[in-house]
Amino acid sequence: MLFDTTINSIKGLDNEAMEKAQERLDNLTKPLGSLGRLEWIIKKLAGITGEVIPSLRKKTVVIMCADNGVVEEGVSSCPKSVTSTVTRNFTRGITGINVFTKHAGADIVVVDVGVDDEINCDGVINRKVKMGTDNMAKGPAMSRKEAIKAMEVGMEIVEELKLKGVNLLGTGEMGIGNTTTSAAVSAVLTGNPVEIMVGKGSGLTNEALLNKISVIKHAIELNKPDPKDPIDVLAKVGGLDIAGLTGCFLGAAANRIPILIDGFISAAAALVAINIKPEAKDYIFPSHGSAEPGSKKIMENIGMEPMLNLEMRLGEGTGAALAFHIFDMAVTAYTKMGTFNDATIEKYHPLE
Amino acid sequence: MLFDTTINSIKGLDNEAMEKAQERLDNLTKPLGSLGRLEWIIKKLAGITGEVIPSLRKKTVVIMCADNGVVEEGVSSCPKSVTSTVTRNFTRGITGINVFTKHAGADIVVVDVGVDDEINCDGVINRKVKMGTDNMAKGPAMSRKEAIKAMEVGMEIVEELKLKGVNLLGTGEMGIGNTTTSAAVSAVLTGNPVEIMVGKGSGLTNEALLNKISVIKHAIELNKPDPKDPIDVLAKVGGLDIAGLTGCFLGAAANRIPILIDGFISAAAALVAINIKPEAKDYIFPSHGSAEPGSKKIMENIGMEPMLNLEMRLGEGTGAALAFHIFDMAVTAYTKMGTFNDATIEKYHPLE
Repeated sequence: MLFDTTINSIKGLDNEAMEKAQERLDNLTKPLGSLGRLEWIIKKLAGITGEVIPSLRKKTVVIMCADNGVVEEGVSSCPKSVTSTVTRNFTRGITGINVFTKHAGADIVVVDVGVDDEINCDGVINRKVKMGTDNMAKGPAMSRKEAIKAMEVGMEIVEELKLKGVNLLGTGEMGIGNTTTSAAVSAVLTGNPVEIMVGKGSGLTNEALLNKISVIKHAIELNKPDPKDPIDVLAKVGGLDIAGLTGCFLGAAANRIPILIDGFISAAAALVAINIKPEAKDYIFPSHGSAEPGSKKIMENIGMEPMLNLEMRLGEGTGAALAFHIFDMAVTAYTKMGTFNDATIEKYHPLE
Repeated sequence: MLFDTTINSIKGLDNEAMEKAQERLDNLTKPLGSLGRLEWIIKKLAGITGEVIPSLRKKTVVIMCADNGVVEEGVSSCPKSVTSTVTRNFTRGITGINVFTKHAGADIVVVDVGVDDEINCDGVINRKVKMGTDNMAKGPAMSRKEAIKAMEVGMEIVEELKLKGVNLLGTGEMGIGNTTTSAAVSAVLTGNPVEIMVGKGSGLTNEALLNKISVIKHAIELNKPDPKDPIDVLAKVGGLDIAGLTGCFLGAAANRIPILIDGFISAAAALVAINIKPEAKDYIFPSHGSAEPGSKKIMENIGMEPMLNLEMRLGEGTGAALAFHIFDMAVTAYTKMGTFNDATIEKYHPLE
């Protein structure tokens, strides 16, 4: 089964490559460690790829699109149909992520993993597991089997992209109602109260926010997801988009491709992936700090800090695409800066 | 006098252009406000330039280079001669800032405002006010007249760049010992204790750090800078590089050019500029959060939050250059994203 094979192929980082990268970093004309987290990026890239001088040849944001049955509880300010409209719009080059990826020299791959509509649109890959999840306020959002199938969609997509030479991945999503499912999944897995994991999504009133909180609490009480079983949590109170992205994170780790978290939904998927296989964390990078409050709590839980602080909450993978520039800059600095040999300058005093 | 003329030319933002920019932002296919601080950048750019659709035609980082007499007190892990060596290296294309600006499609302008060495090097603009400051542990670092002259160097450079079409500025510096002077200036102007404004610069031992703190405290006690008179503070415990950058911030405000803070030294200069003329703040943007602890305290004091969180402490303007990508992305998103008219989608529910 692809799921098991993938999980079992996830191994640790290449320490030798990381040490060699550190040596090279320390020989650049700058105070030791002064490139900060750019150096951390370089070392991690070296450890992931085994290349002491990593290159970012092909960057892609995978966008998982799916509907969420829980939308009928009034948890979103947008009608459900927006999922399918925006999924189509991704192929028309006018959405935020189109503009962000184009600017970063990256591609997008749009995957229908469960939109409640026949998309039939060139440029959208049809891997529909079902026509949106069921309403988690009335029962499990999906079966365990469906959750695994949706994760396998993500794993397959990553394998296909690897064959096409992609070596840096970003994660994006489109699914009305998915801040609700992300809050539910991350509240259960981090043990935080629902209230602090919930935000206003694309724009709720205070009253609607209280309703969103009570719907999530009710869904958790009703379905009793087991916090020790991340797949159970994903299936019962998650979504197909989160599951698809979880598969991307696990698939990226198995295929040794660095992969960036975007916002709250994507962070929730990374959280599920790390709960399934802790070693996957080595392959995952943060990008921006989403304005959704739950995003910060997840990042704390998995021990990551956003690199960009822009209060963006557009989703679609835009934060990840913006962070591609930081990765490009890190590699450019690493490969183009002079060394102490070139600079007729003594090595700066080392940090004690 | 250029100083007075410049200060008196600083006016407020163009509110009409800002309102029109907001209208356009609200018509892009995205939840209202979801581009977060990218929208804040766009509105501020519109207010600064008066252009509803700002374009970033020419970006430049100004690097002020100068020596600090206080280095003879053992406050830095680097020898003083590094200032002049690195100043020359800026023209050889191999320093961090060369690589960072090239990657951002930006230029650098290197200004010798007080290096204690004859530079005589193509590509370094000679505006030396004096051969480095005097040792502030023994008396004022410079006279009030010299501080004003150094600020006027920054103002002149900005005017010259404006004539060349530059419309986005970053600030950088090179000056061994300048985390010491920046800590001194910012401790006095923010009222924070010296201890919390001081860090390890390019790499001090704990013992040397304690010495740095005591040198700064002594210099403040000895020279008694008046916290209500920012020029007095700059002259007595500041540096020529900080003064040059202060002039850049004030000159940029007078010439209606957006200008980015880089790290700690540059933030200290912005702090002085805002203390001299509070309206200058409208023209100033944060970039990254420097690893130097005083940087965070200054940002809090002037009410700004870094956009990048990368723990860089390379100086030279590298953080500002990296933030140029965010500005490019903001303008690209603003000009290239579809509007609700294009997208066959109803406007998202507004935030209440």
